This record gives sequence, C-alpha cells and structure tokens, in this order.
Amino acid sequence: MDYMKDVVFSTRIRLARNIKDLPFPHRLSGEEEIYGVLMKGVEQAVSKLMKADFYKMSDMDELTKQTLVEKHLISPGLTQSQYGAVVVSKNEDVSVMINEEDHIREQCIMDGYAPEQAYQTIAAVDKEIGKVLVVAHDEKLGYLNTCPTNLGAGMRASVMLFLPALSMSGAIGSIIRAIQDLGFTTRGVYGEGSKAQGFMYQISNQAAIGQSERQILDRLNGVVMKIVDAERQARSNLAKTQGVKLKDKIMRAYGTLKYAAMMSSEEFMELLALVKWGVCEHYIDADMDKLNSLITVTQPAMLCKLAGKKLGADERDVARAAMVRNLLKDRQ
Amino acid sequence: MDYMKDVVFSTRIRLARNIKDLPFPHRLSGEEEIYGVLMKGVEQAVSKLMKADFYKMSDMDELTKQTLVEKHLISPGLTQSQYGAVVVSKNEDVSVMINEEDHIREQCIMDGYAPEQAYQTIAAVDKEIGKVLVVAHDEKLGYLNTCPTNLGAGMRASVMLFLPALSMSGAIGSIIRAIQDLGFTTRGVYGEGSKAQGFMYQISNQAAIGQSERQILDRLNGVVMKIVDAERQARSNLAKTQGVKLKDKIMRAYGTLKYAAMMSSEEFMELLALVKWGVCEHYIDADMDKLNSLITVTQPAMLCKLAGKKLGADERDVARAAMVRNLLKDRQ
Repeated sequence: MDYMKDVVFSTRIRLARNIKDLPFPHRLSGEEEIYGVLMKGVEQAVSKLMKADFYKMSDMDELTKQTLVEKHLISPGLTQSQYGAVVVSKNEDVSVMINEEDHIREQCIMDGYAPEQAYQTIAAVDKEIGKVLVVAHDEKLGYLNTCPTNLGAGMRASVMLFLPALSMSGAIGSIIRAIQDLGFTTRGVYGEGSKAQGFMYQISNQAAIGQSERQILDRLNGVVMKIVDAERQARSNLAKTQGVKLKDKIMRAYGTLKYAAMMSSEEFMELLALVKWGVCEHYIDADMDKLNSLITVTQPAMLCKLAGKKLGADERDVARAAMVRNLLKDRQ
Repeated sequence: MDYMKDVVFSTRIRLARNIKDLPFPHRLSGEEEIYGVLMKGVEQAVSKLMKADFYKMSDMDELTKQTLVEKHLISPGLTQSQYGAVVVSKNEDVSVMINEEDHIREQCIMDGYAPEQAYQTIAAVDKEIGKVLVVAHDEKLGYLNTCPTNLGAGMRASVMLFLPALSMSGAIGSIIRAIQDLGFTTRGVYGEGSKAQGFMYQISNQAAIGQSERQILDRLNGVVMKIVDAERQARSNLAKTQGVKLKDKIMRAYGTLKYAAMMSSEEFMELLALVKWGVCEHYIDADMDKLNSLITVTQPAMLCKLAGKKLGADERDVARAAMVRNLLKDRQ
C-alpha cells in the first residue's frame, strides 16, 4: 500500500479522556495542585513509550504557541487555557493536550492513509495514561467527556483529503452531503469553520457514542475508499477532457512557486495544490512529502519564528516566497 | 561600448535605389528579361562582398516566405510581388530586396546599437551594386525613389528600442510626440501600423530628402542617447518605488516562461519583455542574445517550419511554449 498519498494527505486519531470525579476543565477553578498531578501523570505515561517534550502554555510566548497550532499539535483553544499544557513526541506524531476542552486529549497524526497505525499508536498512549490516572468511564455511556458527541469511544478519526479534481468538477458538493448523511463532517485544513484551502478537506466521524473504535475506523475506511476512487476517476476524466490546458495551469503554478518574490498564504495553497496534482499526474518530478512540508513552514507564525522576529504581512509574503523558492530549487 | 543592449535591441540601415530610366516597380509590366538582369546584378554585387543566398518569391512556398518576413529579411509587400526576389547574406545581417516598392532595397540589421557598423556594411553593398547597375540619381533631388519620403539620401535608419520602464511609467507618450517633432516616427516590431508588443518600439527618420547620410545618423544618435538615458532613469526610479513588487512581477514572468505548456504570441512577448528587464536589473542570470533569439523562433511561420507542417493556433501555442521551455532550460 502506498498510503494513498495522491489523495490522502494525513490521518489523525484523537481520543478524549477526563479524570474520574474531577470537574470538566471549564468548571475547574485554579487548583494548581490538580493540574500539576495531571501534567506529571501524562508526561510520565507518554515518556514511557517515546521521547517527548512537555510544554506549559503559561511558559510559552505567543509565536511559539502559534507554531504548535500551525503544526496541528495543539488547538487554538489550548493556547487560551491558563493551565493548558501539551506533551509532544519528538517525531511530532503524538501529542497529548492537557486542560483543553477535556482534561486529556490524545492524538496521533500520520502522513497518508494510516488509520490502523495511528490508532494502535494512540491506543498504547491511552493505555499508559490509564495506568497512571483514573479515567472517567461509564459502562453504558462509555468515556465521559465534556461534549456529548465525544461520549462513547471518545474517539474522532479524521483524514485530510486532497481533492482537486472533485473540487474543480463541482462534484465535491454532493459528496460532502452524502458523507454527512453517513455521520461524517467535512472541514477545511484548520478545523471547524475553516474554509477548504488548496482543495484540502478534513473528514471526521461526527459522534462516537454507540460505536466502538473498530466500527468508527471501518466506517471511515468505507467512506475514504469511495472518495479516493471518485477523486482518481475525476482526475482521469479532467486529464482527458482538459488535456494540455490542465497541464498548462499546473506547470504555470509550478513556475510561479519556483520564482515568485512574494506570495500570500492563500495563493500559495492554491498553487501548491496544483503542483501536487501535477506530481500525481507525473507532469512534475518533485517529492510529495517535501511539497507537503511546505504547508507548515510557510504558515505565518512559523515564518516569524524562522526569521527570529515578528514580520508584517508584506514581509511574510516575501519570506514565504523565499522559503518556497529555496525548497523547490533544482537539485545541483 | 556595450552596444547599449539593455535598451537598444537592434539597428537597421536601409537604402532605397532604382534603376535609371526603368519605370518604378508598380508601373512595370511583366518584362522578365529586365527582372533577370536586375536579379543577376544584385546577386553578383552582394556575392563579391559576402556569402549570400538568392531567393525568388515565385520559387518559395508561403511558409518559407513568412519566416523571412518574421526575421525582418523581407517585407510582407515583397511576398506579394510576382517578380520579387531577395539576396540574403549567410549571417543574415544583410538583405537586398528586388522589386519591392523600389527596384532595390538594401538593408543591414545588427544587434544592439550599431549604426556606424550597419551603415558601413550596407554602403559597401550599395557601392558594389552601383558598379553593376546604373542607379537613378538627380543632382538636386538625390536618389530617385518611388515614395517622396525616400528621395535624397534614400536612407532610413532605424533602431528597435526596448522601453519597459518608460512604457510602464506612461512617459512613453510624450517621448513619442517629442521625437515626432524632431522628424522621427515610432512603430511596433513589425513596421508601420503594427502595435508595440513587449515594450518594443522602432524609431526611424521620417524623410531623407535634404539630409546627408551623416546628418541622418547624427540626428538618430542624438535621439537614441536621450531615450536610452530616460529609459535607464525610469528603470532606476521604478526599481526604487516598486521594489519587490516589480521583482515579483518579473520573476513570475520568468517562471511562467520556463514552465507553461501553452502560450500565445502576445503573452510571450509580454513575459519575455519582463524577463529581459529582469536581466538588465540583474534579477535573472540569462543570456540576452538567447532571449532575443526567442522572438524569431516563436513566430507563427517559424514554428510551422520547425514542426515541418502547418500548425493550428492552439498547436502553435503548445509548440511555442515547448520552444521557450527548451531554450530557457537550466544548464546541466
């Protein structure tokens, strides 16, 4: 299996957990000792399995927090949490947020389509945490979490899909409605309410209640397979009907990425999407992982971080273009 | 002297001559013998000085004639002339048209600003032709030619100027009016009535009567020096005020030229102009002569000639883009 990287950008499994007999985070008031125990417990548990770093929100500057958001390692919500913290594995696959919407949110993100691997990884983390902390669980309701949609398995399985042909052909609309009926939601790259940029769509199960982890994974699998087939078919159709016009559009996008001296984030996502499509169509010989890595390093906070200073919007556009040019430079 | 190639694309000197006591071409009726003498005389004269080819319009297919037009070696008018012919030097600097508007039109085109060199070259050709054929000349009126503007020296001196900054800043309008008052006309790349494409403007003396060759060259020189200064100043101003925006525009043009899969002639000229500007500004490390050579090889007839068949407009756009990509490919 090639992890279906031509269509599936990444897979994410997230488990929500709360500590037994402890009020949910939004009802907790500043009892620092409790947070201390929670943080220490999570850090210990994760560290047993993998090398990891521990960050308290209160210790971090805004820019550093934003870069973690841009890498999808923490949520925007956590950056606002006074007693928020996160444990992040060295390879950045695993992150466990403390005191976000729930006491504990465990996630594993992997490249391409890897739901089993991601699930096994985060389930192991969950098991270790369960050995150190007592998690709230009800025989009938399953895991007890702040939001009712997270009751039951408390699991959200998501895939980030790259759907240029379904977007361009317009078929994406009916697909989103169809998978909604199957209990899946569709979002943009940066979660709820964010717009689909660069033909990227995040699909997740809507609720976890009444379903086992296995059921969620199986149903996601069914939906993903159908969309992957539809996208590949749509690409093949467009390649046939559009011919050189599509290739021209893609190659111009590549030329612009390789040479532009300034570039907005929106334009970058659009052009990158076309170039990724070009790689899938074998018009362009570039490394897909390298292209995908551009998404994170061209985010606003990351650009500032790399420049070592706060940059204005115009300066970021110049820095973004330089970053892209540099990474796409022809091999010597 | 660098021939001012950042502003002056090429220099052309053209002499109009007619045979004594022979009606002008438009009044001549089919006396083949006369044409034979004329053609033979010109061919002999040119061949004494340089290696040259001789082409009769009646022997050539339409496509081959068009490629000579695209290279500025013959005029569109000559292709319609039943008894038209041309002698072209091997290096394509010199061409002598027979039975165009006048019996004989001698021209020399050189890269960059080279009026002296071009004049000396064509004057030598003219002298040889004068030894073989008796040219119509009047003590008072000078050379007798079909069009009154070609009386006198019968000489037209032209420069093809590349004026992106004066065009973009809008100053070009007042400059064209000013040089008109000085007796010079401004045209696009393909002569009278053609639009200025790719910021290219052809400037020539309007009339030759009452002026010696030396006077025409001196006056042209004065005008060219002024425009070159103005263009360089305008470029420097734009580089200062536009900064990275100008560079971005130029670099995107370069990326598009290097990667597009199809391209119209108009777009090509626009993008090439920006890239040439980028070379002048040292944004782009490319060979100016190579860039300029693209103008000829991407013309419609030349593309068909190189493909070995008639191409439709869409096919030409694809062939043009391929030609450009290939010539701009990074050195290995």
